[in-house]
Amino acid sequence: MAKQLINTLTGGDKLTLSRVLTQVENNTAAGNAALEELFPHTGNAHLIGITGAPGCGKSTLVNCLALNLRQSQNVQTKPRVGIIAVDPTSPFTGGALLGDRVRMRDLSGDEGIFIRSMATRGALGGLAHTTAAFTQVLDAAGYNIILIETVGAGQSEVEIARLAHTVIVVEAPGMGDDIQAIKAGILEIADILVVNKADKPGAENNARALRAMLEMANSPGSYAPSRKHLLSSSPNKSVVADKQNNEEKWTPPVLTTVATEGKGFDELLQAIKDHHNYLKSSGEWELREQANLQLEFETLIRDTLAVRWNEKLPPSVYESTMRDLYKRKIAPHTAVEKLLAYNK
Amino acid sequence: MAKQLINTLTGGDKLTLSRVLTQVENNTAAGNAALEELFPHTGNAHLIGITGAPGCGKSTLVNCLALNLRQSQNVQTKPRVGIIAVDPTSPFTGGALLGDRVRMRDLSGDEGIFIRSMATRGALGGLAHTTAAFTQVLDAAGYNIILIETVGAGQSEVEIARLAHTVIVVEAPGMGDDIQAIKAGILEIADILVVNKADKPGAENNARALRAMLEMANSPGSYAPSRKHLLSSSPNKSVVADKQNNEEKWTPPVLTTVATEGKGFDELLQAIKDHHNYLKSSGEWELREQANLQLEFETLIRDTLAVRWNEKLPPSVYESTMRDLYKRKIAPHTAVEKLLAYNK
Repeated sequence: MAKQLINTLTGGDKLTLSRVLTQVENNTAAGNAALEELFPHTGNAHLIGITGAPGCGKSTLVNCLALNLRQSQNVQTKPRVGIIAVDPTSPFTGGALLGDRVRMRDLSGDEGIFIRSMATRGALGGLAHTTAAFTQVLDAAGYNIILIETVGAGQSEVEIARLAHTVIVVEAPGMGDDIQAIKAGILEIADILVVNKADKPGAENNARALRAMLEMANSPGSYAPSRKHLLSSSPNKSVVADKQNNEEKWTPPVLTTVATEGKGFDELLQAIKDHHNYLKSSGEWELREQANLQLEFETLIRDTLAVRWNEKLPPSVYESTMRDLYKRKIAPHTAVEKLLAYNK
Repeated sequence: MAKQLINTLTGGDKLTLSRVLTQVENNTAAGNAALEELFPHTGNAHLIGITGAPGCGKSTLVNCLALNLRQSQNVQTKPRVGIIAVDPTSPFTGGALLGDRVRMRDLSGDEGIFIRSMATRGALGGLAHTTAAFTQVLDAAGYNIILIETVGAGQSEVEIARLAHTVIVVEAPGMGDDIQAIKAGILEIADILVVNKADKPGAENNARALRAMLEMANSPGSYAPSRKHLLSSSPNKSVVADKQNNEEKWTPPVLTTVATEGKGFDELLQAIKDHHNYLKSSGEWELREQANLQLEFETLIRDTLAVRWNEKLPPSVYESTMRDLYKRKIAPHTAVEKLLAYNK
């Protein structure tokens, strides 16, 4: 059965793939079983996160990037490309104009491209978890490159982008000063910076400003990629930390594209290839993989602990504590202590 | 000591207030103790979330709103106003231009206004939790109205906005179609909609489009305010649900403002007052309070369960399991089961 699923998926059965993803999204027993079966077959795909503020032409860029990835290779090495859209403004997730939908249809006509969007209104923290699970399924199904599209303004989106081996931050000229200010937050997660809509006035200024910001950020001591874990407060439990090879250092290139016309994509593809090589040779690839697995594991532990604890607690005890809390007779920490003591 | 802290804070000691907030932000024992002490004194403030895409002039609006709230009342009923900025593009959090900083300084000259910004790069899910704790401290300290400024694009920001009793969603004309598409997601959390920069072309169209979207959203069956809880999967534990009084219904008004010139704020203040009255008379105020307390409690339970579990587990066991996971010898769910069995 396990053998069958992996064979069906790697054989290119998109219907089964869609069904498995829906099971995973709905967190069903079948979905979890599929994840368990597929897990040994994961760890091969290059995960590329594409993030940026709404209006920067991110979806068109993802579209164009997917097509270029499919076209630029010879038949033997042609990668299969998966797209996961976690961006509420993406045409893939439904917030689309007619033109976008047409482009998207063009894309999905290619057998080697698989597109999946995700509802963005799930449980807190659940989005990154589901995205991670989706990448594992696509990875096992033989998709060599997985593009994860997120909107780069919110914290949860930054977390999702961090799942990726390579993070592309997209900007566009003329987005206003407020948008510029966002950069400070997402700049540090960027492996490649793209100024899209480079035919518009201000694109060169924008690229120059980004390079200046990068130089500042790259000055000694100020740039420190950090990957936090939920449980690793005690240093002796952090398996990942302090292993980074600092001899080699990646400097994020600043590229310009016009996605609507397909301009600048040779350079973007080259930058992605360069970053892939850097990740592999520096040991950073392995570190990112490990950090993601650890994060996934820790999220799962927390969920499981909460569910099991909840199952053991009589509803009446929970309810009476809640009522005391609502009346502000008991403070939240005290309520937690009380219920944990009850449930020992 | 408890008595002393609440007296100091209600007496208007902003330095102590800042220190308590820092303790709370850093999640120290002193911070948690302060929260416990202050908790019985909470539940009075009107929490107003202000959210919207970068570039809509949200910060200027928050600024202007705070000044108007202070000016529009007589001396006896003048509310004390707290501002919590959780928006990376806000001048309060540092992403500011010179003009913004000047305006902000004007604001902070008022004894009855307290401004606090928050780092937006904390742990996943931690931001909403810290914001909730901040509102409790300001509430206990006697701030009658607390403005929470967030950027309305990401999921975590939406969660923060939901802490509020009243959610104001700010738009501006000419932000492009991508921004428009975001609305679908945040429209359903809006209690008041504001088209800011109403002196720009397209403002009337924008307001009209919003009203049309609202009408669609308000058609029977399509509008359902939902407040999810982390643990309440079993219906018998949901104390809050199905209690809503549906006789009275709030229809979000669509207002226009020019925040840079202070235009439209009489209407905005009136709408806030109207919503406050609606919340109180419909029972919705109590429901939102309870939903927030339940969410806070459940987040705390999860954190505590994870920390305690982690403390009991020998680091070597955790590490060897992680190594098996990294080698994909063991899948995440299996790893969780293994460690939970070990730790019984």
